[in-house]
Amino acid sequence: MALTPGPLAGSPGPFSGRNLADLAQDLRRGRATSAELVEQALDAIATLGQALNAFVTVDAADARAAARRADEELAAGTDRGPLHGIPVAVKDLIMIAGLRVTMGSRHFAGHVPEADAECVARLRRSGAVIVGTTTTHEFAYGPTGDRSASGPAHNPWDPDRMTGGSSAGSAAAVAAGLVPLALGTDTGGSVRIPAALCGVAGFKPAYGAIPADGVFPLSRTLDHVGVLAGDPEDCLLAYTCLTQPTGRGDEGPAHTALPIGREDGRPAHTTPPTGGQSSRPADNAWPGGLQDTRPTDPARADHPEVGGPVRVAWLDPAGLFDGDPRVVRAVRAAAGPMEEVGLPPGLADALRDTYTVIQSCETAAVHADRLADAPELFDPEVRERLGPAMEVPGWRYVRAMDARAGLAEAAGALFDGHDVLALPTVPIIAPPLGARESEIDGKPAAVRAALLALTSPWNVLGLPALTVPAGTVDGLPVGLQLVGRPGQEPLIFEAARTLGHAGAQS
Amino acid sequence: MALTPGPLAGSPGPFSGRNLADLAQDLRRGRATSAELVEQALDAIATLGQALNAFVTVDAADARAAARRADEELAAGTDRGPLHGIPVAVKDLIMIAGLRVTMGSRHFAGHVPEADAECVARLRRSGAVIVGTTTTHEFAYGPTGDRSASGPAHNPWDPDRMTGGSSAGSAAAVAAGLVPLALGTDTGGSVRIPAALCGVAGFKPAYGAIPADGVFPLSRTLDHVGVLAGDPEDCLLAYTCLTQPTGRGDEGPAHTALPIGREDGRPAHTTPPTGGQSSRPADNAWPGGLQDTRPTDPARADHPEVGGPVRVAWLDPAGLFDGDPRVVRAVRAAAGPMEEVGLPPGLADALRDTYTVIQSCETAAVHADRLADAPELFDPEVRERLGPAMEVPGWRYVRAMDARAGLAEAAGALFDGHDVLALPTVPIIAPPLGARESEIDGKPAAVRAALLALTSPWNVLGLPALTVPAGTVDGLPVGLQLVGRPGQEPLIFEAARTLGHAGAQS
Repeated sequence: MALTPGPLAGSPGPFSGRNLADLAQDLRRGRATSAELVEQALDAIATLGQALNAFVTVDAADARAAARRADEELAAGTDRGPLHGIPVAVKDLIMIAGLRVTMGSRHFAGHVPEADAECVARLRRSGAVIVGTTTTHEFAYGPTGDRSASGPAHNPWDPDRMTGGSSAGSAAAVAAGLVPLALGTDTGGSVRIPAALCGVAGFKPAYGAIPADGVFPLSRTLDHVGVLAGDPEDCLLAYTCLTQPTGRGDEGPAHTALPIGREDGRPAHTTPPTGGQSSRPADNAWPGGLQDTRPTDPARADHPEVGGPVRVAWLDPAGLFDGDPRVVRAVRAAAGPMEEVGLPPGLADALRDTYTVIQSCETAAVHADRLADAPELFDPEVRERLGPAMEVPGWRYVRAMDARAGLAEAAGALFDGHDVLALPTVPIIAPPLGARESEIDGKPAAVRAALLALTSPWNVLGLPALTVPAGTVDGLPVGLQLVGRPGQEPLIFEAARTLGHAGAQS
Repeated sequence: MALTPGPLAGSPGPFSGRNLADLAQDLRRGRATSAELVEQALDAIATLGQALNAFVTVDAADARAAARRADEELAAGTDRGPLHGIPVAVKDLIMIAGLRVTMGSRHFAGHVPEADAECVARLRRSGAVIVGTTTTHEFAYGPTGDRSASGPAHNPWDPDRMTGGSSAGSAAAVAAGLVPLALGTDTGGSVRIPAALCGVAGFKPAYGAIPADGVFPLSRTLDHVGVLAGDPEDCLLAYTCLTQPTGRGDEGPAHTALPIGREDGRPAHTTPPTGGQSSRPADNAWPGGLQDTRPTDPARADHPEVGGPVRVAWLDPAGLFDGDPRVVRAVRAAAGPMEEVGLPPGLADALRDTYTVIQSCETAAVHADRLADAPELFDPEVRERLGPAMEVPGWRYVRAMDARAGLAEAAGALFDGHDVLALPTVPIIAPPLGARESEIDGKPAAVRAALLALTSPWNVLGLPALTVPAGTVDGLPVGLQLVGRPGQEPLIFEAARTLGHAGAQS
């Protein structure tokens, strides 16, 4: 089984099967203009996008103007790199100066940020054209993606099914080929879950690798900014662009120390972004051809002690969750032959409990005032979930933050002798919209717990994790997740390449 | 009114009025031996100490042996500095290898640590002789100092009154002249409060300046190790010795960044101390005479931009608490003429709320299991206080830790144009033992809130703060508190000198 993407939506959008490298070549060889790509995206968003409810706000005028500028720059010899002229969608809780950003909530129905989030500023600096905002589960507080002030997103593979969330619209938009690339956020799996359920690639970098400044928080020591695209190479391209500082503020390293034993591990980008579009063309211009941005042998360069190929081990997901055996089998087959490892006893429970306590307290801290002042503006399910989150005692938070350090050590042992861990991204296929209880192998299961089970541990630990399409079960996509260590991201992408080739040959 | 110490206890102990410099000279000029000093301390502890209930466990055999070694070293020319051969008492929740340390609690009635706390190791490295452990409020959880498994400590100035706490026995022991120096801990004022109420000097360094490893935690981002002595110069000497690393572990800087925006701001001394007595005699030997350890002009050396004398401003304590006007007047008079500043509106409430939330959650995290497993072993009042602490929701902790950063900024403005802030240490005189409600200026007041009101803000902010005796009210001592900024500790002590001289002249 090959790790090839490809949504089965009835009317594939203009970017289905076209990766960033192809688009970049088209733009540079005169076969396409950014204005044309953006027009294609806008058309598809207005048709397919409506049916999927993938977008919340579309910025046609600004997108057209940005596309014109991108074309003019390319014509004038200013090349900002692989995202130059590319239409990109942004999750509806990442701030975009001058555009309505709602967090999927009636609390922010008319909210127009004054400044770009740092990741948006980096997109613009890279020449990307922002076409609009994509549906998020309200306040990103839910892995189902079907509770939002503007309604649920629909899975392009079956519109009666959820996309997964919370970056629901971003996944639907990429899966349906409306845009080649979208930004998402991932607190417990919110990039990887919808990417897997919609059959696209999604990358959650190491904690802090892409600054979260200007992103509406869900749980700040767990929040990560990530990318969704048709294939992992496109994720790598976008990730590389998004880790380059804009020079607007205090720029941290390419990744940040795990937020362990700290209450706020977020890097020091605390002031709201002030600038709009970046204006550093010359020294930041993309120097060469597209090949230059793809490391020829990143695994070797970053991992000199390994002489052979990247070492991938299968992590038995049963230690984390009793998933749908069909899904596990399909993903295991897609991964191919490799050593198998298991979680040490107790680690799964500890990771889950730590995640739940930290996420509850940090999320409640974000919303306590809104919950007191205007509870009626919340989606009822989100409001109901905030109630118990408000009650989690502080001493449990103190202990959970403590536990993280120990968990990091225990989890670190999983990488003894391996570079990358492979496991399913989500242990079930996309459930029907609105489903909260499911049946897995004849046993009842909570949908939210199932969706989060295999992704949230890596948020607790701050580890980079990639999901790549790994075939289908019952006609619905499943994802293979590849987890690595901060600083060794190239090995994750190298693993995706290796497994993709091996899968294609089998 | 002079800032002179001097308890009025009926039978002053052997170290009343003898400071460390005098003792050091006596030891080096053959007028005393460490063995003699320790014998004097042991005798006084057995008599006066019993009446005050200042000590919990006395280590006569080990103290005598350590004194002999100290004498032998001095005779052989090995001079470990100003604490060499000096009898020192240690609060009963700071770990001492091989000695019973109870935390003032029946939970630890027979607890004998295997390793020294880092601060104890530094005492030993400095040649100090540990004579025993001093009464602490149970688990240091109370500023009154009158709830402990081994009974309340008694104030040497009036045995029917509390010492204040939680470093109750350390203050009583120094005030009564049983020892010239004692270690305490200070989470909301637990060094400074008993020092003030017992008429001695007490110094709470900047957060992390003396490592808290091996100290039983009360609230880890607020806990500070501090010193109590007869006068501020002795505090400075001891502080200087205690900030010198032993080389047993990863040694941080002389002070640590404020624990702001971090869940665990404690420095990276996480592994329990493994060594016992330090064995670095030669390279760590005190190089010269006593004068060498007292900076001749530390204010100027550390604060080159200030040409004139140290700038001290009176901080109106009414912004923090409506104290006993007699106490405020007495301390104000002792401080002498100086500019007056006030707290910005709202800052006092914010500091108090932040303190309460952080302390509650962190303390509950320490004791949750004991409270569930053996509640009957707690002092009833401590148990009753833990109940509400267990209930403080985590989102409030997250917000309180956030608020700290903003508070630090707001409080930093207080130092615009000043090096040191002066205010009373405690806004009341020592209440009767067991008192929990009091009357201040005709109005009812909670004793615990009164005791903590003027000291706990500096724990929230991690600022170094010194208390020096400032006369008496109703025959009971009151303290003047001097607060500075981390790294500018010499200015605090310089201010104490300046005010002491000014006071003596007035």
